[in-house]
Amino acid sequence: MDLHTLTRDLHTKNDSKIVLLVGDGLGGLPQTPGGKTELETAKTPNLDRLAKEGVLGSSIPVLPGISPGSGPGHLGLFGYDPLQYMIGRGALEATGIGFELKEGDIAIRANFCTLDANGNISDRRAGRIASEESAPIAIKLRKVSIPGIEVFVEPVKEHRFVVVLRGEGLEGNVDDTDPQATGVPPLAPKANDKGSEKTAKVCAEFLKQAFEILKDEPKANGCTLRGIASKPSLPSYEEVYGLKAAAIAVYPMYKGLARLVGMDVIGDSKTLDEQMEVLKENWDKYDFFFIHFKYTDSTGEDGNFEAKTKRTEELDACIPKIMELGPDVFICTGDHSTPAMLSSHSWHPVPTLLWAKYCRTDPCQSFGEAECLKGGLGQFEAKYLMSLALANAGRMNKFGA
Amino acid sequence: MDLHTLTRDLHTKNDSKIVLLVGDGLGGLPQTPGGKTELETAKTPNLDRLAKEGVLGSSIPVLPGISPGSGPGHLGLFGYDPLQYMIGRGALEATGIGFELKEGDIAIRANFCTLDANGNISDRRAGRIASEESAPIAIKLRKVSIPGIEVFVEPVKEHRFVVVLRGEGLEGNVDDTDPQATGVPPLAPKANDKGSEKTAKVCAEFLKQAFEILKDEPKANGCTLRGIASKPSLPSYEEVYGLKAAAIAVYPMYKGLARLVGMDVIGDSKTLDEQMEVLKENWDKYDFFFIHFKYTDSTGEDGNFEAKTKRTEELDACIPKIMELGPDVFICTGDHSTPAMLSSHSWHPVPTLLWAKYCRTDPCQSFGEAECLKGGLGQFEAKYLMSLALANAGRMNKFGA
Repeated sequence: MDLHTLTRDLHTKNDSKIVLLVGDGLGGLPQTPGGKTELETAKTPNLDRLAKEGVLGSSIPVLPGISPGSGPGHLGLFGYDPLQYMIGRGALEATGIGFELKEGDIAIRANFCTLDANGNISDRRAGRIASEESAPIAIKLRKVSIPGIEVFVEPVKEHRFVVVLRGEGLEGNVDDTDPQATGVPPLAPKANDKGSEKTAKVCAEFLKQAFEILKDEPKANGCTLRGIASKPSLPSYEEVYGLKAAAIAVYPMYKGLARLVGMDVIGDSKTLDEQMEVLKENWDKYDFFFIHFKYTDSTGEDGNFEAKTKRTEELDACIPKIMELGPDVFICTGDHSTPAMLSSHSWHPVPTLLWAKYCRTDPCQSFGEAECLKGGLGQFEAKYLMSLALANAGRMNKFGA
Repeated sequence: MDLHTLTRDLHTKNDSKIVLLVGDGLGGLPQTPGGKTELETAKTPNLDRLAKEGVLGSSIPVLPGISPGSGPGHLGLFGYDPLQYMIGRGALEATGIGFELKEGDIAIRANFCTLDANGNISDRRAGRIASEESAPIAIKLRKVSIPGIEVFVEPVKEHRFVVVLRGEGLEGNVDDTDPQATGVPPLAPKANDKGSEKTAKVCAEFLKQAFEILKDEPKANGCTLRGIASKPSLPSYEEVYGLKAAAIAVYPMYKGLARLVGMDVIGDSKTLDEQMEVLKENWDKYDFFFIHFKYTDSTGEDGNFEAKTKRTEELDACIPKIMELGPDVFICTGDHSTPAMLSSHSWHPVPTLLWAKYCRTDPCQSFGEAECLKGGLGQFEAKYLMSLALANAGRMNKFGA
């Protein structure tokens, strides 16, 4: 029996409010052995107060030793087992640029490439063509016309663009056409199962017309299709948790991930202050709010310990605005660790704070990695966070008699 | 999706070195409530220093409450779910005496027994016949000749010996011929599936010839076959982790277990000092070293708290020789606990130390069971140790985008 079978059966509704505040890449490492992490260095009086009143723990995003990308990292926090629900690369790319995938859509990461006179690939990334140059070329490809299929082409960055195919009977199990080598022609799209044969044919037709449109481009005279994938089919927050959920995010990727689990993406905020305004304005309309803060991750990726510390303080500073609205359950955590020392996502457990009236508080006195080791939530897989949130919100019935 | 699917997809190669030092049965219990365990009593300055710099935790070999044998204990440490990968008793017995099983081999634990005039078993263990007496009788059984089948017979101890059958089309699902009772004849070998019928026939032929050879022995005039099993098919370290791995062990069982996962068994050391020499000599040739130390277990099995403590100090004393080689990841743990107080393997979690540049250190100040409870690895299933080792060695890519 999977976790969602339980939450589906046991959830109940009330007028409680749950807030999940995600500091992307929140966990970190000290700069020197025995030192303090970014979160421990940051002055976070508001999180520390909630840490005293609430319960802490360390969340394992996927499994010990596994460093997740944003997709599996957030699915885990949303309570979707990231090993069960995979988001294909094409679908994640489309989601990342804010493209709203519909049921049945096929999403594809496409690359411009350079072909030589014999049709062999001479550069798999079209010389990493500049975005200003490649975007108009991608837009030209919107001229591709395939009967019965709606074709969307969206520029991304440099040599990358996204193709979405919408139509009846399309499945996503088609191999990449990128041969991962130069001096050879692109591969033909090959279906790996019966259900994906139509998709392979549509891809072949797309490429035929695309190559015709691109033939006079000096660098981007060809393209390859990769990560061909259906829109992932995820049960919604409403269905599995009985929650009317909203996402307040700045970056398209996180809006997209939230949409995949049926959250409404609300507001159009660019800053944390604006996100707080959107939260306040919509407080009465939703049961659950996912608030995403990107900069604890991006500063970590930059390897900038001080900047990550500062961004963590910025995150802390928004807490009073959340708490004055009176949430029943408030959670602050990350989707993974991004230690500045590693300049990348990592496998280290993520500090997690859960504050609620009926949480069983623990001896923790502040919010940080070392303190979390003493916490009442222990070490737990991120996918269990949502059942804990529902329970603390009084939204879960007893299991069995 | 199982753990090896992840490590297979995500592992990457670099020139890092990982050392896994296993103190067999390392975990223990205090002699009196509130006292110190063997490991806590032992003076272990080297492990204590690494405990300060590294991260500790408690490893659960199989599941809470389960006391593992050497087979599942080591499979867990090697990252092979011991509930998924079972090693049949015959295969473990053959492995334990250092017999090198090949793909397709059938390994059998055989017992000498005493038959009465009617062919009924009067003693299931041939009066626990002495090894000196039984070994030459076992060797006589090498005269058995079955067309198309290579038959190996190896003495073990007292009434026990090992039979290995090598040939085409042999599968291991054949019932024991030991009726587990006296006053009845041995059972005929019975196949439980189509694929094992040839094995059952070969076993019957083996027994027919064996009974003829044994008929004039006063005690060991019969034998039974038990634990009939194929060589277990385990994916190799190279395949699932991308690691060229070596085992440095003294006892045949541990060499055999390491061979089953594709490690090279190197050197012919009899002491820990010799094992350290072998390590040094082979340092450049492998990515991963499994070093096995038996005596923390055997002294525990003897119920000798002081001896186990001394042996633990001996284990500690070898650490500088490992560390001066400059491993990137060093792990010290056990395959299970063997508290002297119980004189047996036990279910208690096993103290575990992981030292690496990018481990997130914790407040632990020394290596011992109580300290491990405060550790950053928390309590974890042993099977996750290898993904942690790979991550800390920088040998794992990100999961998902």
